[in-house]
Amino acid sequence: MELISTNVSFDGEHRRYRHRSAVLDCDMEFAVFLPPQALGREPRKVPVLYWLSGLTCTDQNFMQKAGAQRRAAELGLAIVCPDTSPRGVNLPGEDDSYDFGSGAGFYINATREPWSRHYRMYDYVVSELPALLESELPFTDQRGVSGHSMGGHGALICALKNPGRYASVSAFAPIANPTECPWGIKAFSGYLGDDREAWEEWDATLLIPYARERLPLLIDQGTADEFLDQQLNPDALADACEKVHHHINLRMHRGYDHSYFFIATFIDDHLNHHARALGLR
Amino acid sequence: MELISTNVSFDGEHRRYRHRSAVLDCDMEFAVFLPPQALGREPRKVPVLYWLSGLTCTDQNFMQKAGAQRRAAELGLAIVCPDTSPRGVNLPGEDDSYDFGSGAGFYINATREPWSRHYRMYDYVVSELPALLESELPFTDQRGVSGHSMGGHGALICALKNPGRYASVSAFAPIANPTECPWGIKAFSGYLGDDREAWEEWDATLLIPYARERLPLLIDQGTADEFLDQQLNPDALADACEKVHHHINLRMHRGYDHSYFFIATFIDDHLNHHARALGLR
Repeated sequence: MELISTNVSFDGEHRRYRHRSAVLDCDMEFAVFLPPQALGREPRKVPVLYWLSGLTCTDQNFMQKAGAQRRAAELGLAIVCPDTSPRGVNLPGEDDSYDFGSGAGFYINATREPWSRHYRMYDYVVSELPALLESELPFTDQRGVSGHSMGGHGALICALKNPGRYASVSAFAPIANPTECPWGIKAFSGYLGDDREAWEEWDATLLIPYARERLPLLIDQGTADEFLDQQLNPDALADACEKVHHHINLRMHRGYDHSYFFIATFIDDHLNHHARALGLR
Repeated sequence: MELISTNVSFDGEHRRYRHRSAVLDCDMEFAVFLPPQALGREPRKVPVLYWLSGLTCTDQNFMQKAGAQRRAAELGLAIVCPDTSPRGVNLPGEDDSYDFGSGAGFYINATREPWSRHYRMYDYVVSELPALLESELPFTDQRGVSGHSMGGHGALICALKNPGRYASVSAFAPIANPTECPWGIKAFSGYLGDDREAWEEWDATLLIPYARERLPLLIDQGTADEFLDQQLNPDALADACEKVHHHINLRMHRGYDHSYFFIATFIDDHLNHHARALGLR
């Protein structure tokens, strides 16, 4: 992997890298925040929070806007932000809409042509990228996962489908039941085809009954979120959790919207949630 | 003034407004962070920090990237971010370079044609905008001023030229001696003409000997700032301060660059500095 840039931040380092992804069959960029504990003369290995961003984002939105580095530096927690889709693969229609193709990989493995060769973001964020980083950077194999909107959906399915792989999971305004909302139906139809049974393994609400590990869910949601009614549906997820006694802390925040101003307000709570599970506090 | 948007943030509100500026003879946008103390059922008037941004910025960069809202909400401090130049005035050459014209008003009053009709950002940020906001929003007349790079220069000259108007001043990586660096020489030549004597009233280093009020200066500067050697010259400002016993706390931060990752790291120290002077702590 090739270092693109470094910015010192809260005595740690924000770094951007480029690498060739075998899984996605294209070059990808990602960002890492290394806390000060992982640097300097006596660096030690640190656990990692994977942050999965929402539609239209790159690796940069969270790093620039969430204000997470302050608390992560205090805790000794690394943060990794992958990009949100394969890039530069030149598939027809890839750049035609904000909610499908570029910037909208949905953290699933496509099975439908022409998407299945490149659009395998699930394998990329769950397996390929952590394996690379745990060999190249001072990371332990202790992982948390979180994300926003499409990335909140991603964080939930990554954790629910991989017992033992993550110590903790949380989400901001996740697409909690994608098989039942317009964003999810468009993406799953395109990437997976019309067989709705094949969609079920990529929907957090539908995965909850079958989860083999019951990691507690921390979910923050703004009541003034413009996508709450049509796209997000955290109540469906909460109902599914209730039925099988899966612990969920769904916090509804009056007046907050879907923006990074919302995420920044509550990111420290999420970092603390992950830090506790990762043994940092 | 017309409200463009509101985002709840740290129990306060980030708002963007549009208004007609008489001074600049054009429509302008600006951003405000109102802390929770200024909102709700028992709002009270709060003091204001004016943040002046650097080259190419708008009212949005600081609000999205500095992570200032958390501490400002705790302190009960409002923040105002003006834009960095007049907009949409269609002067020839206005958009030809990043360091002159649009996005590069330099917080001075132009005297040279064709710039003098619109490019009067000094009067705008010192007088017109505060007068408007102190009548329209729950603001006291207690003000601090800070900024970054071109805006750090702006903050320093606004405070130095207006004894009694600001309770506090600080800057990140300011253009400390603009009459002696390429950015400043280009801007002052263009806006003020070739008479270098006319430049002197807009240069913080040259104003220090004549300051009628000796507000202490808090200046943060990264040692890995790519503009430090050619453009910023904080040593010239420190030397001028030393000669007349003007208190300056110039903090050189090893490895930090010119970016908002640098600003975010130290913004809380600046907010605390202003809050002390504004009677908030």
